[in-house]
Amino acid sequence: MPPTAPSASDTVFDRVSALARETGAINLGQGFPEIEHAPELLAAAQRALVEHSNQYPPMRGLPELRAAVARYYVQEQGLAVDPAQVIVTSGATEALAAAILAFVGPGDEAVLLQPFYDAYLPLVRRAGGTARIVPLEAPGWTIPFDALEAAIGPRTRAILVNTPNNPTGTLVSRADLERLGALCEASDIVLICDEVWEGMILDGSTQVSPLHVESLKDRSVKIGSAGKIFSLTGWKVGWAVAAPALAERIAAQHQFLTFTTAVPLQWAVAEGLALPAEWHSEHRARYVAAYHRLAGGLALGGYAVLPSAATWFLTIDLTASDLESDDEAVATRMIREAGVAAIPVSAFCGDEPEKGYLRFCFAKEDATLDTAIERLARFR
Amino acid sequence: MPPTAPSASDTVFDRVSALARETGAINLGQGFPEIEHAPELLAAAQRALVEHSNQYPPMRGLPELRAAVARYYVQEQGLAVDPAQVIVTSGATEALAAAILAFVGPGDEAVLLQPFYDAYLPLVRRAGGTARIVPLEAPGWTIPFDALEAAIGPRTRAILVNTPNNPTGTLVSRADLERLGALCEASDIVLICDEVWEGMILDGSTQVSPLHVESLKDRSVKIGSAGKIFSLTGWKVGWAVAAPALAERIAAQHQFLTFTTAVPLQWAVAEGLALPAEWHSEHRARYVAAYHRLAGGLALGGYAVLPSAATWFLTIDLTASDLESDDEAVATRMIREAGVAAIPVSAFCGDEPEKGYLRFCFAKEDATLDTAIERLARFR
Ligand SMILES: CSCCC(=O)C(=O)O
Ligand SMILES: CSCCC(=O)C(=O)O
Repeated sequence: MPPTAPSASDTVFDRVSALARETGAINLGQGFPEIEHAPELLAAAQRALVEHSNQYPPMRGLPELRAAVARYYVQEQGLAVDPAQVIVTSGATEALAAAILAFVGPGDEAVLLQPFYDAYLPLVRRAGGTARIVPLEAPGWTIPFDALEAAIGPRTRAILVNTPNNPTGTLVSRADLERLGALCEASDIVLICDEVWEGMILDGSTQVSPLHVESLKDRSVKIGSAGKIFSLTGWKVGWAVAAPALAERIAAQHQFLTFTTAVPLQWAVAEGLALPAEWHSEHRARYVAAYHRLAGGLALGGYAVLPSAATWFLTIDLTASDLESDDEAVATRMIREAGVAAIPVSAFCGDEPEKGYLRFCFAKEDATLDTAIERLARFR
Repeated sequence: MPPTAPSASDTVFDRVSALARETGAINLGQGFPEIEHAPELLAAAQRALVEHSNQYPPMRGLPELRAAVARYYVQEQGLAVDPAQVIVTSGATEALAAAILAFVGPGDEAVLLQPFYDAYLPLVRRAGGTARIVPLEAPGWTIPFDALEAAIGPRTRAILVNTPNNPTGTLVSRADLERLGALCEASDIVLICDEVWEGMILDGSTQVSPLHVESLKDRSVKIGSAGKIFSLTGWKVGWAVAAPALAERIAAQHQFLTFTTAVPLQWAVAEGLALPAEWHSEHRARYVAAYHRLAGGLALGGYAVLPSAATWFLTIDLTASDLESDDEAVATRMIREAGVAAIPVSAFCGDEPEKGYLRFCFAKEDATLDTAIERLARFR
């Protein structure tokens, strides 16, 4: 039997959501928005169902969607992407799986920066690789380059980076990407960069991707997600963007993982990506407001809120909030006593977890956030 | 780098379709229907987009869809399935990938019966396993049990079976499933049964699944496809059905391959599966007619058509049709000289391919089939 994967019912998002349901707690755990804000895409999908073929689209995605992804990156990030570099996948999770299966083989090593999204570690292991985990430096969650260099060895094939980061909401700076580029060049390493939160940068700055960095252009995979850009997490349309030689290897995995992705939703996402920059900034503005509402409310309630530059999440520092540092224990107590569910940051970690931080999802209606704030003010 | 997968542009379906496009040939290669016949599902998807949440459904699929799959199997196959056994995947390809990654690990062996669908071999290899290939016995494509027993060893973890079979259109009999059950029990082997063509049995018989066989109930994975049942190959909604302990292991892989599947299409497929048995038999009747049209036309034209009990495909025996036995050569010449594209059966094989057969897809409009028949009558 293959290396054990965690049992499927073990996912922290499911566990917390189930406990929230049982206890009637407000669920600020799993990351999904309470309101949908993209009626344009719903209408586009309705039209696509009857105006286009519902048969197999090309394996790498509809040409129209691959072109729209490329144009979106020019518009939003000033990034020159060729449609031939784009491979459409069944959600960003599949893009991650395909990239890891493409570049990490039996006996290979991959470096993960902790905290990391929950799929990375089991995927590296199932690919036959070994993960070397390097903790980011709290509370700014910056890359400790000495430790990173020490983790790189002759069998290192890939480094997984997540910018903007889930759960921390922090960004990797251009300077750090350039340092990463030098390391990757020196040791012939592929950078797999999970950028699913690129559309949710809330501090007014613009996404900096490895594809912006000369030394990384030909050795990086940029992973994106329509679900996050349009707040449609149930659509499962994502993509990987990479130089042709890398894209070829990812496609070779994608071909036998899902072959292709729901075609009516591909048409709709292509239309959505063509919406003007104003649409995207107005869409983002709702989340900026929600972020400030929850951050401000928690701060007033005495919580030590860490600044979040992006994502639908913010984290609090538990000991600085006069709470115990065992984040799992606080999370469980908070569901039961305050009726608010959040995710312990240790759930995004390996064997030596970062303790002391809780993640809250603020992609919720004002009333939901206000009730949560009220309840949490009494909890501390 | 991981074990080489065939380069992505190498898929025979893409290659043949590209050549057909270039030369203007009628494409009876890749399996997809020319007309869509399920307006009920298009309307259901349009409604779901606005009546239901577009956020993450549960990881194992909408409860409503899992229940609908279970009820469909009672209605169509008299098979008792519990919704808890069903895991919804992003197409049957993902169900195959998840099952193979769940049950075949590094150093393990899996037995494939040749001809086999093109995804099996690369998936077994990428999972870390070794494939032992057992050729079915042409022209009836029955299982040679002596050869199969000889291929089973102490490292055998899985046998992959495809019934109805693509490309041959043949079914595995209940007696043979029972013999398989005895072998699987004796050597503690999981039977991964690709049943995506179960809705397209054209000879009036009913699908017999390993889940009908007592000795296989707890050691089989049944894989199904909404795309094939409803002629919507671009929707990418599939599932795996298995006893709870096996389902758990498949879910643990699914969780990190795609996590979940496009939710509006899940709602629509749930509605579709609830259509009465008459809907399904009327739907099938179109394909029965198309099968007889092409089979009859080719036979009149002097081709040796092998009987096909199911799928959208029929095969011809080349030497019995006075053609050379090199199926790839005939396929290439047929595209160029007759303007009709078909798939060589050797494309569904390993290192020692079965030569001498060509596969034609008959899921096309009458006019398309008639033109192909005319052209092929002049080719021989
Ligand atoms: C796939 S469930 C998790 C959703 C998410 O991105 C998160 O909550 O971090
Ligand atoms: C995924 S492309 C192949 C479609 C198909 O099932 C076939 O032609 O055999």
